[in-house]
Amino acid sequence: MTPYTPPLRDHRFMLQEVLEHQVLSLPGFEEVDADLVESVLEEAGRLASDVWAPLNAPGDQQGCRRDANGRVSVPEGFAEAYRAYAEGGWNGIGVDQAHDGQGLPEVVASAVQEMLHGANMALALCPMLTAGAIEALIQHGDDALCARYLPPLVEGRWTGTMNLTEPQAGSDLSQVRTRAVPGDVAGEYRLTGQKIYITWGEQELAENILHLVLARLPDAPRGNKGISLFLVPRRLVDEQGNPGELNDVICTGLEHKMGIHGSPTCSLSFGDHGGAIGYLVGEPGRGLNQMFTMMNAARHKVGIQGIGVAERACQQALAHAAERRQGRRGGQECAIAEHFDVRRMLLSMRARTEALRALALSCASDMDQARHAADDEQRRAAQARVDVLIPVVKAFSTDQAVDIASLGIQVHGGMGYIEETGAAQLWRDVRIAAIYEGTNGIQALDLAGRKLSRDDGAALASLIDEVDATAAALVAHARLSALGESLAAGAHDLRAAMRVVLDAGRDSTHGEDAIQALATPFLTLAGHVLCGWQMGQAALVADAALQGGSQDAFYSAKLAAADFALRHWLPLGRAQRAVIEAGLDALSQDPVVR
Amino acid sequence: MTPYTPPLRDHRFMLQEVLEHQVLSLPGFEEVDADLVESVLEEAGRLASDVWAPLNAPGDQQGCRRDANGRVSVPEGFAEAYRAYAEGGWNGIGVDQAHDGQGLPEVVASAVQEMLHGANMALALCPMLTAGAIEALIQHGDDALCARYLPPLVEGRWTGTMNLTEPQAGSDLSQVRTRAVPGDVAGEYRLTGQKIYITWGEQELAENILHLVLARLPDAPRGNKGISLFLVPRRLVDEQGNPGELNDVICTGLEHKMGIHGSPTCSLSFGDHGGAIGYLVGEPGRGLNQMFTMMNAARHKVGIQGIGVAERACQQALAHAAERRQGRRGGQECAIAEHFDVRRMLLSMRARTEALRALALSCASDMDQARHAADDEQRRAAQARVDVLIPVVKAFSTDQAVDIASLGIQVHGGMGYIEETGAAQLWRDVRIAAIYEGTNGIQALDLAGRKLSRDDGAALASLIDEVDATAAALVAHARLSALGESLAAGAHDLRAAMRVVLDAGRDSTHGEDAIQALATPFLTLAGHVLCGWQMGQAALVADAALQGGSQDAFYSAKLAAADFALRHWLPLGRAQRAVIEAGLDALSQDPVVR
Repeated sequence: MTPYTPPLRDHRFMLQEVLEHQVLSLPGFEEVDADLVESVLEEAGRLASDVWAPLNAPGDQQGCRRDANGRVSVPEGFAEAYRAYAEGGWNGIGVDQAHDGQGLPEVVASAVQEMLHGANMALALCPMLTAGAIEALIQHGDDALCARYLPPLVEGRWTGTMNLTEPQAGSDLSQVRTRAVPGDVAGEYRLTGQKIYITWGEQELAENILHLVLARLPDAPRGNKGISLFLVPRRLVDEQGNPGELNDVICTGLEHKMGIHGSPTCSLSFGDHGGAIGYLVGEPGRGLNQMFTMMNAARHKVGIQGIGVAERACQQALAHAAERRQGRRGGQECAIAEHFDVRRMLLSMRARTEALRALALSCASDMDQARHAADDEQRRAAQARVDVLIPVVKAFSTDQAVDIASLGIQVHGGMGYIEETGAAQLWRDVRIAAIYEGTNGIQALDLAGRKLSRDDGAALASLIDEVDATAAALVAHARLSALGESLAAGAHDLRAAMRVVLDAGRDSTHGEDAIQALATPFLTLAGHVLCGWQMGQAALVADAALQGGSQDAFYSAKLAAADFALRHWLPLGRAQRAVIEAGLDALSQDPVVR
Repeated sequence: MTPYTPPLRDHRFMLQEVLEHQVLSLPGFEEVDADLVESVLEEAGRLASDVWAPLNAPGDQQGCRRDANGRVSVPEGFAEAYRAYAEGGWNGIGVDQAHDGQGLPEVVASAVQEMLHGANMALALCPMLTAGAIEALIQHGDDALCARYLPPLVEGRWTGTMNLTEPQAGSDLSQVRTRAVPGDVAGEYRLTGQKIYITWGEQELAENILHLVLARLPDAPRGNKGISLFLVPRRLVDEQGNPGELNDVICTGLEHKMGIHGSPTCSLSFGDHGGAIGYLVGEPGRGLNQMFTMMNAARHKVGIQGIGVAERACQQALAHAAERRQGRRGGQECAIAEHFDVRRMLLSMRARTEALRALALSCASDMDQARHAADDEQRRAAQARVDVLIPVVKAFSTDQAVDIASLGIQVHGGMGYIEETGAAQLWRDVRIAAIYEGTNGIQALDLAGRKLSRDDGAALASLIDEVDATAAALVAHARLSALGESLAAGAHDLRAAMRVVLDAGRDSTHGEDAIQALATPFLTLAGHVLCGWQMGQAALVADAALQGGSQDAFYSAKLAAADFALRHWLPLGRAQRAVIEAGLDALSQDPVVR
């Protein structure tokens, strides 16, 4: 596998030149300035490229092991690499200073996370899950719980997990059966049940693990409303906050997965010896809602993860194509990067990765606005955008990342299929990102159903207005008018498709089926148009820089990427409008499922 | 992994009802009738489902091993399964009776091959390569060579390999360095060199292996014209035709591949001890041409292979979706196959697999016409169609198969990422099909370059005329007119895109680059339109059957698949026209490759 180069130039372009560091003027970021952001990104890039990235291929080969006592060992070097991360203070960069984090904007934290995922997705999953646990405690835990459990999580001395899935409860969490009964000590509960697919569910690379577990209290109602959220430490914590004896939780198995072999995916059994001790987080019966507040942030991070892997696939494909000599161009022997079919693949990978990154970082900037803007209305409007964007960032980035990693294999030819090359690992690893934290189908339902219907499409419509504004600016621009026309057509299609989806959803008989049928094509269309919008903005900035006299080849490459995104990629997404308008006749036939 | 069910009903539909067994009236097939075809398919289906399919998952887990002497062992049961195949006479079904084959039409052989690949792609590769060697000997070997080497190949007692690739010579075979010098015995040559990626290059499941090897004679010119084709037996053959002592060929390594673990992919070293004994096949300097005649057939078979794996992915996804209960529809708990987002995935997988199968079998029927039609002009016209269709069948079927297998994983949710489920294996296995036998990019260049330019698009234009005729028949049909309109629009797009490609290719400065830039979008568009055409024909046949009073649910399912293919899938392909018309500005910028 080729080395990983942190994409600092593109991060800088997005944060400084496109988003203009607007978040730095928000209340709460008084101590953050552009220089600090720059040095954070550089330092994170060094950790990613020098420490984490070299462990990616060996981690895939070694995988994880579970011994007869349920102890889990992870690949060599992972513990040291994690320690370097925690000791560097990276775990708290996005956490508010009120909770002893560094309180950097989400948009900066996202850029850092992208690099860590690109360097080593399997390892980066561990802090990603911890971040979810931190979020859950901050938002829902009472003061006592936070005081005891939050600091070591923020410091990265302890890690966190999310325990949702059970064999009969996957996409449908209302089926959760794990039970919690009040324990002998006030405030303690005893949990019993089986959880599966628990990412980094057992390991000894940190001093302790805090499992956040969905379970049912006695006499809880059936379905979603009977589910509560509990904190279950791997090691029980004494009065001084030190982890002591092991709780009644054991790892009963590790999944044999297609990828992310360096990340232990555990089956956990709670309460085989009388009940695992746990603590209620927030109110009873609110477990699913609480988990979903965590999942929203986690979904954005999964999108970021896809982008990190896509970036690495781009780098690896380009390095190979520049090196490998096959065939001729204009009669001369040449590197395959000279062949236009290969350039098409390379540019497609590059343009899409940059477009996805731009959308995800723009969404992160909205997350900062939603949390920090001084004005209520501004916060509300930003949150409405975030709510619409997150399912797109999660699902579209990961679907595209799988395809980008596949093109990376294709650029390598036969070598791409050989594991030692490393291109295959990226494809195998990133495939899970389209499944976990809510499958991409679930994301599409979230967008086309809940997120559209609750405001009758208003939040998305206002995003489309912004797309139109960018399209108009491009059309008015001599050199970029073709890009603008393409973007305007995309915005028009998205608006029309939104109307179809909203109308279909209102049908009391078939509405539920129609939303399901149209959701994925709709999300795909939205992803293309919103990514096209971002690349349109990028083109305006890059063109202005070149017109201002810059000789930086980055800008002309950005223009080429924008041209590709808007004229070679967006048309493929626009075709989803016809699919949406074709309706659900074919799907309604029963013999479909034969 | 779920059991494999031979798709006999759909094969029967294509062969009998759509293609109307037309090939059975060709000269040479006098002894073949519909009943024989039926019993051949049923028997092959039994071999596939009962003997080969159960070995697919264990073969993936066990993989192949090479010992210190270079001997290779394959997964348990493979030798017995291969023997059942050879002893059943399956290896010769598509070989002319003049060469002791059974002389069945290619369209029947293709259906049989699809089942074997669907059951066990790794094992099916072995006879696929043998078929290439048989073809090479029949077309290019002299009588003496054929007399000695052909019978055991046809019987399946010996297997064949294709030795093309060397480390520096992959897509560009002009770089081949392996040398052949005349030996001491007249007619013998001594070969020295290194070959890589040799599928089933070493094994002991057959009595002997015949390696077909590209090499250079002394004083051969540089480049393509200096390459000749040699037959190099693994064991030298005595006067009685019995394999005896080992030749000077050794397996120096097995590749560690992402998939098809049951197929040994070998590095072979020829001539470490004085030179491997080989025999010239046909004229010197014609090696590449000879290899390409083999590869044309092999490319069709790789397409068939993709379809076989796609079919198995469909079956497995449907079985899971019908079983797995999550969520509710209309307030009732239900199997996930009830959810329209899942139905969309299942129908997309099913409709595309059937469309690809229809196109590949239609192409096979043209191959029969090209070889057997009484009339010269008929043969020539059929061959022209075959030449255009083969790159489409190879590349489009395999690209789509990768995507279909990916949807199969998605239908399984988290379970899809766990190896024991088997969905992941299909995706890992089939990924190679888009790379070997000429990458899909090479196929696209073959179509958009050589195949279009040599007759100025005439062969493709006449295929598009047929698409138009089918579209017109659909439009004239009350219930199918929407399908016809969609197909007509696709035909229109393909014709327009063909003109763009032909015009671009005529530009003496940029023509070469333009063909490269446009080739893959063009092949993708052609694949969608030609598959849509096949599903349009299928819809006409299925509708007529239902109107004729049939109650067979197969026909209504076929109509649903056709509706999906033409109205939900074809529009996505049609979007490639806009990509083609966008030209190559973005690709021409040098900084693209940064």
